[in-house]
Amino acid sequence: MTSGKSVALIGLDWGTTSLRAHLLDSAGGVLERRSSAEGILAEHKDGFAGTFRRFVADWLDAFPGIPVIASGMITSRNGWVETPYVPVPGGIGELAASLVPVDVTSACRLHFVCGMDQDAAAEAPDIMRGEETQIVGCLAEDGRRDGLFVMPGTHSKWVSVRDARLDRFDTYMTGEVYAVLKTHSILGRLMEEPGGALTGGFERGVKARLDSGASLLRHIFSARTLALYDRLKPEQGADYLSGLLIGEEILSAKRDYGLDDAAAPPVTIVGSGALTERYSLALGLAGIGAVPAPEDAAALGQFAIAREAGLITA
Amino acid sequence: MTSGKSVALIGLDWGTTSLRAHLLDSAGGVLERRSSAEGILAEHKDGFAGTFRRFVADWLDAFPGIPVIASGMITSRNGWVETPYVPVPGGIGELAASLVPVDVTSACRLHFVCGMDQDAAAEAPDIMRGEETQIVGCLAEDGRRDGLFVMPGTHSKWVSVRDARLDRFDTYMTGEVYAVLKTHSILGRLMEEPGGALTGGFERGVKARLDSGASLLRHIFSARTLALYDRLKPEQGADYLSGLLIGEEILSAKRDYGLDDAAAPPVTIVGSGALTERYSLALGLAGIGAVPAPEDAAALGQFAIAREAGLITA
Repeated sequence: MTSGKSVALIGLDWGTTSLRAHLLDSAGGVLERRSSAEGILAEHKDGFAGTFRRFVADWLDAFPGIPVIASGMITSRNGWVETPYVPVPGGIGELAASLVPVDVTSACRLHFVCGMDQDAAAEAPDIMRGEETQIVGCLAEDGRRDGLFVMPGTHSKWVSVRDARLDRFDTYMTGEVYAVLKTHSILGRLMEEPGGALTGGFERGVKARLDSGASLLRHIFSARTLALYDRLKPEQGADYLSGLLIGEEILSAKRDYGLDDAAAPPVTIVGSGALTERYSLALGLAGIGAVPAPEDAAALGQFAIAREAGLITA
Repeated sequence: MTSGKSVALIGLDWGTTSLRAHLLDSAGGVLERRSSAEGILAEHKDGFAGTFRRFVADWLDAFPGIPVIASGMITSRNGWVETPYVPVPGGIGELAASLVPVDVTSACRLHFVCGMDQDAAAEAPDIMRGEETQIVGCLAEDGRRDGLFVMPGTHSKWVSVRDARLDRFDTYMTGEVYAVLKTHSILGRLMEEPGGALTGGFERGVKARLDSGASLLRHIFSARTLALYDRLKPEQGADYLSGLLIGEEILSAKRDYGLDDAAAPPVTIVGSGALTERYSLALGLAGIGAVPAPEDAAALGQFAIAREAGLITA
């Protein structure tokens, strides 16, 4: 905290299973970061407000009146405040204009970023909470106004940006379907828990799915039949299933977004760690270029929205 | 057991969660039937042989030397004897020629019907154990040589018959995917256990899926978003998800088997109970005619195979 720039904002990225906080300077630089497993599903014995005050107590003490902004599932029905959705198409302007303020103490006002929704009145509405802020962060970082983003996860998202606004998005339950099938269905019976490294089962599963026109409800059964025939090793079974499902997601996005075009710009992968590697590999197998998003996309987005809303006074 | 015809065969339909036995006369008529929950997953403290002897002890005593035939998951890796598969295309001739005999006692020989497989060397092999016998039973009952059959269940099957032989089949994990998503995924959180009667959620789900070109990994998320918007009642959520999944299965089969053709003959539904009603309704919504299979299809098929194999001596 010895930056020449002044301390300007606390950003909370508060999801289902984790809580991350960033202390940002007046240029959007990260001065300090911390994280914990105190996502909204954890026990909050003094409520969300209690967890918040304890988690960043030293920052609140050191910088009285510092603005605080929060995004993620903390604004959902099971979170602190259930905020409405901003419809797509929309971007930083709409998000900054719809911040939901809550006074935690007389000296501390917290601003919640609304999630976004799509096709609210149609038969298949879609929603996000938190990803919109990460996308704004990606755009703020390199100034670009168009692009396609994939955000791997339990419920992975594909987000299309036009003219610097989120134009369309799609949620795929890829990660959760993988987890419940592996843990609770017959497909898991012949699988061994894989070690740390990705096995060849993943690439095989992606390729099989990219080459198949069969319904997914049918194709996944091959994760069992191949194992019964001793044609899929037990330690590769989970990766094979993961490959089938991520392959399905990419196959669908490829069709929806016209990614067969060789001139299509690369997709930006927002995330980190092993899952991002899987998507990068699978996109490559599908002939789709991929580039990584900036680190701290959530913090970058929170800063950009806070500045747009006039909260950054430094 | 006062039939004019002689007692000719015991047929065992031994699946994962149930055991059914039929005592048949020399014309294939059912003299007696019994069933229990002693499927292969149940505890068999005297082994499968012990369960078998106890379950039909009175029949074995009353008709010494009576032939016994068994089909179903009892021939799988976790069953009594793991039999090989008969490849498609194949029918009653191949099944009768490949019965696997096991002597339970010196006076009792049990004949296991092999399951069938398809594309064993390809990337998506398919397998069945038990359904082949039911199909043979359906054909035996009305003498027909061609048709398309749907067999609803945990792993539902579609079976195409040509020239009285099983020509092609497809397994869909529809029932199991429904169960694991409802019980273990976030989709179940906003659902209430439905009462006995089918709710309007089912028809709505089928129609939504038939009208959608979206990947199933994406479409199922609407079972959550519609509920969050209070546009899907909690007691209709499970039926809606069931409708989406059965709709997907029918959409896929419709494409694979050219059922868009108005001249396509009706599909035969093999099964009974609530699940059969769902498929009948869903097929109707997709513009596909449906007729019920004969009752006791498994017993009819066991009798036909036993007779073809020369086991019926009466």
